[in-house]
Amino acid sequence: MTYRAPVRDMMFVLKNVAELDTLQSIDAFAHADEELVEGLLRECGRFCSEVIAPTNVDGDQQGSVIRGEGEGVTAPDSFHSAYSQYVDAGWGAIQFPEEFGGGNFPLAVATAVKEMITAANMAFSLCPMLTTGAVVDLLAHGNDYLQQTFLPKMVTGEWTGTMNLSEPQAGSDVGALTTKAEPAEDGTYRVSGTKIWITWGDHDLTENICHLVLARLPDAPVGTKGISLFLVPKYLVNDDGSIGERNAVEVVSTEHKLGIHASPTCVMEYDKAIGYMVGEPNQGMRQMFTMMNDARLGVGAQGLSIADRAYQQAVQYSLERRQGKAPGDEELENGQSLIVKHPDVRRMLLTMKSQIEAIRALTYRNAAALDMAHHHADEGVRNRERMMADLLTPLTKAWGTDLGVELTSIAIQIYGGMGYVEETGVAQHFRDARIAPIYEGTNGIQAMDLLGRKLGMDGGAFVKAVLAEIREQAATLDDPAFGSFRQHLEGAVDAVETAMTWLMTNRTDFNASFGGATPFLRMFATMMAGSLLAKGAVAAKSAIDGGDDDQFLVDKLSTARFFAGNILSTVPGLVDSVTFGADDLFAIDDTRLQSV
Amino acid sequence: MTYRAPVRDMMFVLKNVAELDTLQSIDAFAHADEELVEGLLRECGRFCSEVIAPTNVDGDQQGSVIRGEGEGVTAPDSFHSAYSQYVDAGWGAIQFPEEFGGGNFPLAVATAVKEMITAANMAFSLCPMLTTGAVVDLLAHGNDYLQQTFLPKMVTGEWTGTMNLSEPQAGSDVGALTTKAEPAEDGTYRVSGTKIWITWGDHDLTENICHLVLARLPDAPVGTKGISLFLVPKYLVNDDGSIGERNAVEVVSTEHKLGIHASPTCVMEYDKAIGYMVGEPNQGMRQMFTMMNDARLGVGAQGLSIADRAYQQAVQYSLERRQGKAPGDEELENGQSLIVKHPDVRRMLLTMKSQIEAIRALTYRNAAALDMAHHHADEGVRNRERMMADLLTPLTKAWGTDLGVELTSIAIQIYGGMGYVEETGVAQHFRDARIAPIYEGTNGIQAMDLLGRKLGMDGGAFVKAVLAEIREQAATLDDPAFGSFRQHLEGAVDAVETAMTWLMTNRTDFNASFGGATPFLRMFATMMAGSLLAKGAVAAKSAIDGGDDDQFLVDKLSTARFFAGNILSTVPGLVDSVTFGADDLFAIDDTRLQSV
Repeated sequence: MTYRAPVRDMMFVLKNVAELDTLQSIDAFAHADEELVEGLLRECGRFCSEVIAPTNVDGDQQGSVIRGEGEGVTAPDSFHSAYSQYVDAGWGAIQFPEEFGGGNFPLAVATAVKEMITAANMAFSLCPMLTTGAVVDLLAHGNDYLQQTFLPKMVTGEWTGTMNLSEPQAGSDVGALTTKAEPAEDGTYRVSGTKIWITWGDHDLTENICHLVLARLPDAPVGTKGISLFLVPKYLVNDDGSIGERNAVEVVSTEHKLGIHASPTCVMEYDKAIGYMVGEPNQGMRQMFTMMNDARLGVGAQGLSIADRAYQQAVQYSLERRQGKAPGDEELENGQSLIVKHPDVRRMLLTMKSQIEAIRALTYRNAAALDMAHHHADEGVRNRERMMADLLTPLTKAWGTDLGVELTSIAIQIYGGMGYVEETGVAQHFRDARIAPIYEGTNGIQAMDLLGRKLGMDGGAFVKAVLAEIREQAATLDDPAFGSFRQHLEGAVDAVETAMTWLMTNRTDFNASFGGATPFLRMFATMMAGSLLAKGAVAAKSAIDGGDDDQFLVDKLSTARFFAGNILSTVPGLVDSVTFGADDLFAIDDTRLQSV
Repeated sequence: MTYRAPVRDMMFVLKNVAELDTLQSIDAFAHADEELVEGLLRECGRFCSEVIAPTNVDGDQQGSVIRGEGEGVTAPDSFHSAYSQYVDAGWGAIQFPEEFGGGNFPLAVATAVKEMITAANMAFSLCPMLTTGAVVDLLAHGNDYLQQTFLPKMVTGEWTGTMNLSEPQAGSDVGALTTKAEPAEDGTYRVSGTKIWITWGDHDLTENICHLVLARLPDAPVGTKGISLFLVPKYLVNDDGSIGERNAVEVVSTEHKLGIHASPTCVMEYDKAIGYMVGEPNQGMRQMFTMMNDARLGVGAQGLSIADRAYQQAVQYSLERRQGKAPGDEELENGQSLIVKHPDVRRMLLTMKSQIEAIRALTYRNAAALDMAHHHADEGVRNRERMMADLLTPLTKAWGTDLGVELTSIAIQIYGGMGYVEETGVAQHFRDARIAPIYEGTNGIQAMDLLGRKLGMDGGAFVKAVLAEIREQAATLDDPAFGSFRQHLEGAVDAVETAMTWLMTNRTDFNASFGGATPFLRMFATMMAGSLLAKGAVAAKSAIDGGDDDQFLVDKLSTARFFAGNILSTVPGLVDSVTFGADDLFAIDDTRLQSV
């Protein structure tokens, strides 16, 4: 079963939710007109279906394997050709400046491209994703030497990039890292330490790998304030740009994981490896934050991608598999209905479809906010969109990835017993999806970020304005075409306000407020995605009213109504979880939590 | 990390929720006094910790492997000794009549035993579980010859049993099966056909395997009315009880599954195999229903078991792993708190703990209902408890197993990156748990069963009485010790009634009512489990008021308050999903469901 890129819906969301028009009005993106973007997405969709998607099962079974200590990692056979075609086609470059060989497309468009590549093969996509992150960082903070030496190769993906943050004692707690960087006389550094969870830390797809490594200078302040960022290439680069000597960085081992088997998760050992400082000393954490919104958005999109891949398979299966007789069905074969005719299967499919469309709306809007924050001519718009991006990012990351797990689980359920055997490939999506709520800041950390940093932006005025806007929007959703959208969007805003008021009142009781952070994020994200889905529904209705008879638009409205009645409607039910308070969260002594 | 049986909580639930006193008042169970039961559970707990739990990871890695076509399945090395110790200790026999070597304990007690064995090793436990199912069936329907020849060996587990229902075209739709049974002149039958999904269909743990096989007699009616049940042993049994000739049944292949790797899932080929009819011709489906409540209860308990095993690990990890600084924590090491001190981790742990205790209450009460339905002296009680068991069974099966997946997923989240690597063993629980919502009637089928068969029992009077009783119970929960239990239990009953009224009103619109079945089951099960948890809380409070200073009781109340405020409180939020109706469920043409 291959993957078919949902370009029709991607374009619909880009135009009607992510404001592609506004993006095109920005000078830098003037070339990215609708026709060009659609052509690009269709071509990328074809490439993903034909070149990348066929490597997915194969990659899972073969995995990326370490050949032995000091001997490096071998990627799955099929990845070699697919990756070099990926580089040749230039898909990795589309969001980057022309100056370094990029296509200079908005991140919103690049996000659609990433959605496709990830859906085609999530383990594969992590290699470009990490490379992109490294490029973003070098673009923002690298000096001229680093940019000229590394960026042209990294933008295309000829060389890949990695991010080295975690150490055994420093996971979510990055400030606890101990890797050292000692200055050498030539202005470079000698980096020593052990890093864990390094995605695509080693492989044989490209001739060089550029590691971005967080480390401490001698006598650096403790905690996050004493962290600097270094570029440590696997191979040094000669002055003429050719590959030079092997640097002192080795992959020591790889993890045996639940999923993403083809993505090698490496323990890396740096032993006085030559490194180049990126940016200023002790600014490493700030520099990481530069790319954090992009990276978290990218991970959120993984939930979307995997859920859609699993959904496509589930629909296909439900159109082939027959069991029992569905109510009123008259198209039986051997007395059996297609399972798509059964209301409970239908409910499962629409639970997937409606939430996939909702995550897509949220994700693309988030990307467009980053585009506008970076590039819009109007400073007011830039500031507003910067806050919008800051607000949406934890929602996209946590809600998108939680749903990635929940929706791939539903796909297994639709398959029944055939979903539990690995040969159908559905279980792989479930296994692959499970990492996304963990990495790039656990979803618990996203919830704390929403609470601790985002609600209070601009003294709380920004979020208040967002809620007021959604309330106004809800009041316009009176037409029967929107079903219960008005009622449930208003209900969701009321509920979010109630919960938020409580959180603000109790904000200095950290155990109480942070204890409610996760259900609050769920509420907020569902409301926000609902609002964006409604925006799309309004556009669909306008188009229909204007005479457009594309059935896609009618279906879009139906899907939105399903979301309102089944998903958005559950938001008020979460208020009590948010406002539960700290007393019973901490009433039981730590050691008595254990089952007895 | 081993498993520690939660005997304290098991006994608490047996006494205060599953009415162990009432069970003891039944003649058949008079010997099962509290002291004996607790001793039994403690001994079983020790056995599970020491003998079975250590085989869990090993079994997952090695798996049960088919040696080649026609050559049978080899179970993991460590299973051989563990299984023979299991047989020797007699754990498989405790729920069966003394006449066949059983211990004649209530099913409620046997359910606690099964909980432990499953938590220790779910893949292992499936072998006894299937054997138990076969024994239940033979006890109810087998003739004297079959009972005398097979039961003594099967009750102890010296010989194992299997259930052969599914065929490629007949999964949930059992009536579509085509396996044939032709009468031979000696009164036996010749069974021919292919069966799939046969759990422990072949293995090398015991000298014989007794297959219960659904098949059609020549000229049997079509559909479920033409199915008969046959016992087909792997080896025929000589008149003196010794093992005779090999029968014509073979394992053809085994499935490569997401989890329960050590439990061989077999494709079985019957080629004129000698079979013995169990019960009357064409009564196979009814005979299957005999054991269905038991089997579904057993599968529901799997959710409980795996969730508790994962919870035990998650608590342990949260008491060892340090990251960041928790609010107000003064017991730092290297500036880091134990993660158990972080409110969001705490919320995850209590989300697990409170729901595990709730499933345990529901499961044991369900088992006790079956005990009373079978054995109580009073016919009125028997009838009432029969309906109670019928009502609770789909709830236990579906809610217990859905939560099994959700809660093991939370355990992975608590472990962070370490949860995603297989070496910690947490991911295995998540993989293992995922089968339970599928087999023994998918959870969608449970929801339809609740709606189609259970709500209308006794003209609807039974469920109405149950709701009225819960409402009365709620009104008594006024003490602050119960937190928001009164409010949320009343809210849940109101919501269930609202949803039920709608379902009844729309019951002939099958697409509408069955479309709401799954969220309705979630509502009903959460309310029911909440009611049972409240019953336990009341007992805990009484004991405390009576001077019992066991901290366990205080913790029990806190956990119940968490359930009320965080889980039970979400029930009203599901009403709209139940009452969504069929229009938008079927508005989009089947073939247009696909992503475009």
